[in-house]
Amino acid sequence: MKNAIDYIYQRRSIRKFNNKSVESEKINLLIKAAMAAPSACNQQPWEFIVVSDKEVLNDLKSSLYSGNYNAPLAIVVCGNMKLALSGPGKDYWIQDCSAAAENMLIAATDLSLGSVWIGVYPIASIIKPVKKILNIPEYVIPLGVIYIGYPEEKKEARTQYNKKRVYKNKYDPDRKHRARKKNLKYT
Amino acid sequence: MKNAIDYIYQRRSIRKFNNKSVESEKINLLIKAAMAAPSACNQQPWEFIVVSDKEVLNDLKSSLYSGNYNAPLAIVVCGNMKLALSGPGKDYWIQDCSAAAENMLIAATDLSLGSVWIGVYPIASIIKPVKKILNIPEYVIPLGVIYIGYPEEKKEARTQYNKKRVYKNKYDPDRKHRARKKNLKYT
Repeated sequence: MKNAIDYIYQRRSIRKFNNKSVESEKINLLIKAAMAAPSACNQQPWEFIVVSDKEVLNDLKSSLYSGNYNAPLAIVVCGNMKLALSGPGKDYWIQDCSAAAENMLIAATDLSLGSVWIGVYPIASIIKPVKKILNIPEYVIPLGVIYIGYPEEKKEARTQYNKKRVYKNKYDPDRKHRARKKNLKYT
Repeated sequence: MKNAIDYIYQRRSIRKFNNKSVESEKINLLIKAAMAAPSACNQQPWEFIVVSDKEVLNDLKSSLYSGNYNAPLAIVVCGNMKLALSGPGKDYWIQDCSAAAENMLIAATDLSLGSVWIGVYPIASIIKPVKKILNIPEYVIPLGVIYIGYPEEKKEARTQYNKKRVYKNKYDPDRKHRARKKNLKYT
């Protein structure tokens, strides 16, 4: 038995899975954890598509350039624009759904499952096929795909703590960071 | 001692705090938990401003219309555009920083602290004063302010699980949801 912070450190992106299915009780717990996340004005703008059907799952995997892993399960985290705030706060759905996704990753670790979060939104060329395969209407946006299964690889618990990213009371624009600028090769 | 999912349920938005300061060891653990989050292409585009100075904290609180609570500590989660991806994946910083923020909220619960996440980005009229008060340059964006302290209110652990938000294999556009559409009154 460990504390929450231990699970937060132990959550690593797992990309190799064995072929054991994820029990439906565990799937329910993952979704319950997701919906325990905070959301702006408690709007809960999220929806979840649990994909375990082999054909749909294979189609989904083929549509994700950088996300074709052998997981037996995918949970697609979506934002529903009919449930989201309107006006200037509309895009809070992204933060709300991201918090829900992170809860799911930590819960998966708690349940001895491995997981990896594959970004979908805002890359138009990934959103389009994902929506088509999953029958997602215009007003619902897939934020990301979480692959889940029993892990076939082990990774060390860790933080990527870097004290240069922490400021005391005010920002210091003179502090230099190593440039990490990378361009995602999507078109 | 509890499992991670218990802490996920126990994490509630706490808005009343007593006047006990948060120990620096705990602040470090919160930041370490934040930086254990996943990020797109492992870019880690995040920075954190730890605000405990009374004057700065009061200025910050006054600038947040819906976030003037009596917490002794605020941690401002920022995205640094020099560290973020460029190109179509640029906005993944929002998801990365949201995952980091959620880790911090769960870690706070683990450390017997209360917390509440106040949204800043993308509301221009909140971003502007926050940047001015904290000396944040043009290329850094405050995503949100996390207030932290020892709680003076108790809330039940819970999920807001709603089975109508869960789909099996494909989305069902015919399913009806109660409209929750609200408009944030920001200008």
